Order: sequence, then C-alpha cells, then structure tokens
Amino acid sequence: MTAVTETIRNGVDTEQMFGTLDAITADPSLGAFQFRVSNEWIAGAHNRSSMQRFYGAGQEDTSRSEPFTIDAGEPAVLLGHDTGANPAEALLHALAACLTTTLVYVAAARGVRLTAVESTLQGDMDVRGCLGLSDEFRNGFTGIRVSFTVKGDAPEEKLREVVERAQQRSAVYDMVTNGLPVAVEVLTA
Amino acid sequence: MTAVTETIRNGVDTEQMFGTLDAITADPSLGAFQFRVSNEWIAGAHNRSSMQRFYGAGQEDTSRSEPFTIDAGEPAVLLGHDTGANPAEALLHALAACLTTTLVYVAAARGVRLTAVESTLQGDMDVRGCLGLSDEFRNGFTGIRVSFTVKGDAPEEKLREVVERAQQRSAVYDMVTNGLPVAVEVLTA
Repeated sequence: MTAVTETIRNGVDTEQMFGTLDAITADPSLGAFQFRVSNEWIAGAHNRSSMQRFYGAGQEDTSRSEPFTIDAGEPAVLLGHDTGANPAEALLHALAACLTTTLVYVAAARGVRLTAVESTLQGDMDVRGCLGLSDEFRNGFTGIRVSFTVKGDAPEEKLREVVERAQQRSAVYDMVTNGLPVAVEVLTA
Repeated sequence: MTAVTETIRNGVDTEQMFGTLDAITADPSLGAFQFRVSNEWIAGAHNRSSMQRFYGAGQEDTSRSEPFTIDAGEPAVLLGHDTGANPAEALLHALAACLTTTLVYVAAARGVRLTAVESTLQGDMDVRGCLGLSDEFRNGFTGIRVSFTVKGDAPEEKLREVVERAQQRSAVYDMVTNGLPVAVEVLTA
C-alpha cells in the first residue's frame, strides 16, 4: 500500500513521469509532438472542433478510438444562438487547463500533495475592435487576470512556487503571453 | 419569403447585425465586454472549465440558464487518462472557432452566401520545453498552420478576401499571434 501511495501523487503516476523524462532525455526525438484540430462550420456562430490523432513520442498516436468534440457559439447579444462557449471563452479554458495541469504535474514531481486547485479567469475586450468599428481597440482581450486558489500539504511558499513554476513551463501560458506565428492557407474548391 | 431570405444569411440575422453595429456606434460604452471562466481541478490532468455569465452590451448577461463546461485531459503518453482534449488542442479549437465565426459574419455582412467552411489546424512543439528538460525549446507551439476550405456563391477572390478580413478582425487570432499580458494571483487559504 505504501508503494502505491508513493507512486500516484495528485492522480499522476510519478514513476511513469520520471520514466518518460528519462526516455526523452535518452532519445530527444521522442520530444517532437504535433497536435491537430479539424473544425466544421454548422451555421452562424455554431461550429465544431474534433481532436483525435496526434503525433508524439516517436509515432502517430492512435489510442483515441473516438474524437473529442467541442462546440463553439456566441450568445444572442453577439448574434449567435448560444450553441457553446464562445472562442474567447475557449481560449480562457485552454489557459486555465494548461496552467492547472502544469502545476499539478510540478507538484507531483516535487512531492507536494494537492487537495484543491481552482481558478477564475477574466478577459476584457472592447468589441469595437473585432466588429471592425474602430481601429483604436485591439480585437482580442487587452489582458487576462487569473486567480488561483491552491491547497495542499505544503507551506504557502511552496504552493506559490508550484504556481510560479507552472507559469514558467505552461505551453498555453507561453503562447498566450508571447504569441506565435500562424500561417493561414485557403482552398476554395 | 424574399425578405426572410435576405435578412438571414449564413445563419446570421444581418438586420440584427447592422442594428448592433449602429447601437454600439451610437453608444460606445456598449462595446465593453468581459468574458470569464471558472476551472476546477479533478485529478491528474483532468480539470473542467465552466462558462456562464459575462458582461457586455452595458449589462451583466444572465441569459445562460446553465453553464457550458469543457473537460481537459492528456493522453496516456503525456501522463493523463484522456479525459478530454488537451490544453494545446483547446487553444487550436479557440483559434479555429474564432476565425470561422469571424469569416462567417464578414461574409454575411458583405452579401456572400457560404455553403461550406472547414479547417484543419496543426501545431508543432517539442515537449522538452514544457517538461522542463531543456531551455532550448519554447513551451508552446513553434507555429500553427491553418488550412481553410471555403465554398460559397462568390468568386474565389471574394472568398479569399473574406478569410483575409477574418484574420484582420478575429479576437483569438489577434491574441495568439500577438500575445497579451496575463496577471496571475495565488490564494492559498
């Protein structure tokens, strides 16, 4: 029982975690990943993304027997029929999820047992930008505020360090704060 | 019948659209929006975001009787139990959804009737960054490729213009390509 308790921490198999880190260190080509999404327009602001295969750890991953799907929409005040979270809310979800998973993994690696992690995120925008009414406003959020509540069997300073480390290593936090190149091609037939 | 056909284009009520644009132009304070997400950690890489209320068009919006929820996860090879699309895939979804809705709205405004919009997105990363194994790699994607297939009753050039305009006005495209400030606060009790 002690062995089991020691290996699984915060729902993460730390033995598998350290094994994965060792394997990638031994063969760096295993670190190359490609994630993919397919999106289909349904009507108006309603569209749906599917995620199934990806490439990683040296091979095409076929472990998902079905795709995940996420529906997008807009509320009535933004001309939609509320068929799903809107794209700006989806971006906040991506950021919340990535910071949370990263801090949970960091805590597992550092021997910190977490009991609760919750976050609230707020993003402000003036839609005169994205609606094309004014060039004075950017299209997206001017900024995002994230408030984490983190509880666990460690001193406050240790819990804060785990969140700081998550900011230093989160993939989505990196992308949202620093930006990245996006290439768009268009086929019309 | 003709009137209905003219007003609803691509599933968008263009009369409501132009009314909204006029209303915001007349009272610019209506353009201020705030979107929000709450996220709760469940176990390991499994966490769940909820989106319900937001502020916009001069008031707190209470039109959603239930929150939308999106679950996050990681596949086995990234130490999870595949409880949902991972955060990097969620970011690709946010980008796909925003570009799609923006181009559908732009087409509706410009009198272009669309028959199909599909997109595939790919993002490449070396996880040696986000796993903390190397500082040579950024944590997030090095770049994203988006391929749109757009069909409708307009010449190819017009369809391409609609996609270009969507890139110029999409909230998430702006955020992902340019980045934005993210402030993180931590509560431990």
